Amino acid sequence: MVKINKNYLKLPGSYLFSDIAKKVNAFTSNNPDKKIIRLGIGDVTLPLAPVVIDTLHKSVDEMGKQETFKGYAPDLGYEFLRNAIVENDFKARGVNIKADEVFISDGAKSDSGNIGDIFDVDNVIAVCDPVYPVYVDTNAMAGRTGDYDAATSKWTNVIYMPCLEENGFAPVIPEKTPDIIYLCFPNNPTGATISKDKLQEWVDYANKVGAVIIYDAAYEAYISEEDVAHSIYECEGAMTCAIEIRSFSKNAGFTGTRLGYTVVPKELKVDGVTLHSLWARRHGTKFNGAPYIIQAAGASIYTEEGKKQIKEMVGYYMNNAKIILEGLKDAGYSVSGGVNAPYIWLKTPTGMSSWQFFDHLLNEAHVVGTPGCGFGPSGEGYFRLTAFGSLENTKEAIERIKAM
Amino acid sequence: MVKINKNYLKLPGSYLFSDIAKKVNAFTSNNPDKKIIRLGIGDVTLPLAPVVIDTLHKSVDEMGKQETFKGYAPDLGYEFLRNAIVENDFKARGVNIKADEVFISDGAKSDSGNIGDIFDVDNVIAVCDPVYPVYVDTNAMAGRTGDYDAATSKWTNVIYMPCLEENGFAPVIPEKTPDIIYLCFPNNPTGATISKDKLQEWVDYANKVGAVIIYDAAYEAYISEEDVAHSIYECEGAMTCAIEIRSFSKNAGFTGTRLGYTVVPKELKVDGVTLHSLWARRHGTKFNGAPYIIQAAGASIYTEEGKKQIKEMVGYYMNNAKIILEGLKDAGYSVSGGVNAPYIWLKTPTGMSSWQFFDHLLNEAHVVGTPGCGFGPSGEGYFRLTAFGSLENTKEAIERIKAM
Repeated sequence: MVKINKNYLKLPGSYLFSDIAKKVNAFTSNNPDKKIIRLGIGDVTLPLAPVVIDTLHKSVDEMGKQETFKGYAPDLGYEFLRNAIVENDFKARGVNIKADEVFISDGAKSDSGNIGDIFDVDNVIAVCDPVYPVYVDTNAMAGRTGDYDAATSKWTNVIYMPCLEENGFAPVIPEKTPDIIYLCFPNNPTGATISKDKLQEWVDYANKVGAVIIYDAAYEAYISEEDVAHSIYECEGAMTCAIEIRSFSKNAGFTGTRLGYTVVPKELKVDGVTLHSLWARRHGTKFNGAPYIIQAAGASIYTEEGKKQIKEMVGYYMNNAKIILEGLKDAGYSVSGGVNAPYIWLKTPTGMSSWQFFDHLLNEAHVVGTPGCGFGPSGEGYFRLTAFGSLENTKEAIERIKAM
Repeated sequence: MVKINKNYLKLPGSYLFSDIAKKVNAFTSNNPDKKIIRLGIGDVTLPLAPVVIDTLHKSVDEMGKQETFKGYAPDLGYEFLRNAIVENDFKARGVNIKADEVFISDGAKSDSGNIGDIFDVDNVIAVCDPVYPVYVDTNAMAGRTGDYDAATSKWTNVIYMPCLEENGFAPVIPEKTPDIIYLCFPNNPTGATISKDKLQEWVDYANKVGAVIIYDAAYEAYISEEDVAHSIYECEGAMTCAIEIRSFSKNAGFTGTRLGYTVVPKELKVDGVTLHSLWARRHGTKFNGAPYIIQAAGASIYTEEGKKQIKEMVGYYMNNAKIILEGLKDAGYSVSGGVNAPYIWLKTPTGMSSWQFFDHLLNEAHVVGTPGCGFGPSGEGYFRLTAFGSLENTKEAIERIKAM
């Protein structure tokens, strides 16, 4: 008699975005004349860059001709893409990652979920709170998180590292020692970063206690400040304790095009076994590569033209972020993020819960955002707005919020 | 201190295709004047169909314009694709699968590996022997297969169902009761199928003992005989015991384009829990959809034009299969497959092991195939040739084999 993975039954319902949709639908049917502005989800809105479109057309043509048709891709991904990554994302920053330490994938969500496969069930994870929910949910599915306590909105066997206004939204090294530490900088949802020196402390700590850091750098392209590391490998010793996950979704608008990569340095060993060999085995057995045309498109963003074009896209969104950040400050809100990230994190006005502020914003300004409590218990009393809308909508949303 | 998933260390080295490559490279450097013909790997060689190329170009253009740009895809995949699948792959065969029971993915390899996530570690799997290695390897990674015994090339906690010449390469219901049964028809590597009546026996058995069948129908498009089911759901009662995995790789040449889907009927329940709800959660948490342009391309093969074009591709490969099958029969080999599948499975001549025949074929005919032992212990003494080469090469390879 077949038995299911009972860990799935422990997961609380994932209703955040469906609850938001329900509330928005109800508002719209009661107020058909009101124009809603959505600054809620983390999805991009600008079209793909011209260089990406050109490359897609060219590589589609290759797939239509016998002589240039491509079947199964190499296990790690095409070398042309891995070389471009190494050259631009790492060598250019003085980091000596090798092309065969880079694994091309269909995106950072898959990688940050699947990476758990190579670790034992018996590991304790530490996460920033609030944070991207995929880290905790996928570990819960694997049976690594204990039980869910609805009263506290916490799992019994997860180390939560609260990131609050009082600590500058930066995690503090926890009392209990974790085995696996998830760090995401710039952070989703707070938009916070930590300095390179602070990141170095995490690397040193992980090496000292024998922990592995899963470093999610999906928002790296939004970093504008000098003392923030773009890659954890800019820190000394990170090669022996950190796995880094990258995405083409937010820098190049690939949310619907799907491409990412994960770096597993060969120096990273546990009991003499390289995590590289485990991930290579997982990658080769449970995945068959990202499409050739998408890998070609990904490589095009590393050309001179490509770099210029995606910088413009990021600049467009960061201009929105600035408008939101400064507008909310003017309006008297306590806000953070928005400088090195496309997310603005605001503290709800006195006494309001995240959901109360959601309703308030929807009813008074017809603007949709995301309640902070959806990202972890320490997100309660906070609210996320994103810079991925159009300039016009962003401006109008802020005018409306100011007038509330 | 972090702990790795030690199950990975139990996996024997996966050297089949690298050993083949080494032998071929050695031969080539010793015989630079000899032309090698490769009928070894299961990768397609024909370019993508014109309708697919056209659709890719059109959808790439959509991604380049603000008004038609697509970000994150719906969790289950685009409805236009799921509707086309339901209409053509199921309704047309009298099968009542609903669009929300279809999960679009990046391919059958990912799905057949990842589906294990929703089952408990404590389940015993049964597999055809020989078979596509991903089923056993991914279960080994999850800790479901016991230990590997190098002497027998078997895992201690796997039920092997030998598929040999004497049983027509069809599995027999095993003595010990499995919890999860992997069936792949038409089979890779043997090319064998079973009749719809025989498949019905498996469905009845699974329902009786409370087992789940993971049905891999990746080669469905190659079925030419009337009494062979294209979908397991053509059998009565399959909705309550079977998950079906499909691929666009072999019917439409998407090996390097990546698209597949998995059907989990809502009627399929274990202890009152629908497997659909578990897979939906897994799919939504650890995957972010196949690219929009690839989903659009996938839908194009269901148009009248598309159906005609991919039928031609399959016909081209099946003509190769016929040439191989008949040529080898003429040459006195004991062969099977090749009628409902692009794989021809031959028994090695008296006393030769799979690898000895590999060397013989390489040295005498300069033809590369795949040793049957690479697909499981019962593959020893057999050899796989594939119909995915060009017509010219296929013809020449057979002439050379006949002349050996």
